[in-house]
Amino acid sequence: MKDTREEKADSHFACSDSERASFEAGVKLGTIYHQFVGVPLSVENVETLEKAIEAGSKVQPFVQDVRVKIDRSNLKRKRGQYDYVSLTGDMLDVTLVVKYKTATVRASMKLIKEMNYPLMYIEEIKKK
Amino acid sequence: MKDTREEKADSHFACSDSERASFEAGVKLGTIYHQFVGVPLSVENVETLEKAIEAGSKVQPFVQDVRVKIDRSNLKRKRGQYDYVSLTGDMLDVTLVVKYKTATVRASMKLIKEMNYPLMYIEEIKKK
Amino acid sequence: MKDTREEKADSHFACSDSERASFEAGVKLGTIYHQFVGVPLSVENVETLEKAIEAGSKVQPFVQDVRVKIDRSNLKRKRGQYDYVSLTGDMLDVTLVVKYKTATVRASMKLIKEMNYPLMYIEEIKKK
Amino acid sequence: MKDTREEKADSHFACSDSERASFEAGVKLGTIYHQFVGVPLSVENVETLEKAIEAGSKVQPFVQDVRVKIDRSNLKRKRGQYDYVSLTGDMLDVTLVVKYKTATVRASMKLIKEMNYPLMYIEEIKKK
Repeated sequence: MKDTREEKADSHFACSDSERASFEAGVKLGTIYHQFVGVPLSVENVETLEKAIEAGSKVQPFVQDVRVKIDRSNLKRKRGQYDYVSLTGDMLDVTLVVKYKTATVRASMKLIKEMNYPLMYIEEIKKK
Repeated sequence: MKDTREEKADSHFACSDSERASFEAGVKLGTIYHQFVGVPLSVENVETLEKAIEAGSKVQPFVQDVRVKIDRSNLKRKRGQYDYVSLTGDMLDVTLVVKYKTATVRASMKLIKEMNYPLMYIEEIKKK
Repeated sequence: MKDTREEKADSHFACSDSERASFEAGVKLGTIYHQFVGVPLSVENVETLEKAIEAGSKVQPFVQDVRVKIDRSNLKRKRGQYDYVSLTGDMLDVTLVVKYKTATVRASMKLIKEMNYPLMYIEEIKKK
Repeated sequence: MKDTREEKADSHFACSDSERASFEAGVKLGTIYHQFVGVPLSVENVETLEKAIEAGSKVQPFVQDVRVKIDRSNLKRKRGQYDYVSLTGDMLDVTLVVKYKTATVRASMKLIKEMNYPLMYIEEIKKK
């Protein structure tokens, strides 16, 4: 009987379910940041971009849920040709849930003002 | 009287309207390719991604119109965790129109099979 | 007494050292993939790119070591203008070591041929 | 007799040499910006990254020369784990020369302070 691709993947890992889920959550947050930072952004396309980032995350392995919110405070409505910015990490507020077997990780990325840094972190791990 | 940002930008250019429009079209195609190649992709999110790429292009300077089509022939409906791919340049079929003053450029990117290369090229320039 | 930025970061995490280290390793592999896939590549610049990816990873938090190898089998020496490709995930062979307090994670990314997929995985976790 | 890949590419273009060279210059600047914005950056890896961006541009079609300078004024030497930033467009100062047949274009990207915008522009076109 042929192994599934999930089983083939599993055979390469040497860690617990919660470590695996934590790793997978980290991959997804690193993906969002480094794939989408730089996208041209204004009031006109911000919601479309949020939806596309969410939809892209959901096709990755073990993602149960994801919510992406982009800070609109510096976005303009486009009147002149140069009235737009590029997406930066500081503008991203993301929470996602990754489930691998017995472990469910909720991880987030957001600007931590006292660090002046867009931190990716693990909020909660549930083990059943 | 204060210069607009468009006038400030213009003051840095030393070329004709059609050369400017050609340059601006090249920037936008380079942007699409190098911003979005790598995005996780399956049947579920391909249309959302096409819309986001189009919307992102439209906020850039002098873009009048843009149409993005992603080749679906290797996309799967997601059943297993690993049933997705990453967007590659070969999958992109893009046409955009850039207008700068008297010049309108229609430029495209698509896989040229006999070159095995996703070519960016100028299809037509109108000068009025 | 003022908290360090490391302590401020720590205050947002709710997980063990090994889960944190696994998460941090995932972030770095996601970063490498989604930041650098798409870079123009030929025999001439492959080594420079490997060094830049390694150097970029080393400035991220908790990375102890990283080794990046790009598959050269489809790279050409540049004779014609179009003799180059774009970096894809399938060409990347990466191993990195992340250390967070008591936990050290060795994680890798490489093409798993029987999956036809560039898998990111945890090879080993040491807890002391 | 078989066409070269250059001739096949040429057959898709409908424009003058100087418009083609302008377009090609735009593609390369769009590539640099949207490929590399987001790279983790500190004093330790800034020079390696400059070299990698330059080397990546040189493998693209018709690039004769390129010089990339990244603004170091906000870069730190890494003491703590979070002492690094992400490359932004505002930090990039790039000049490149593209030559296509009879036309040579020198184009640049740099932060224009009075626009608060990293402008890409054509500095000079030589036609022989």
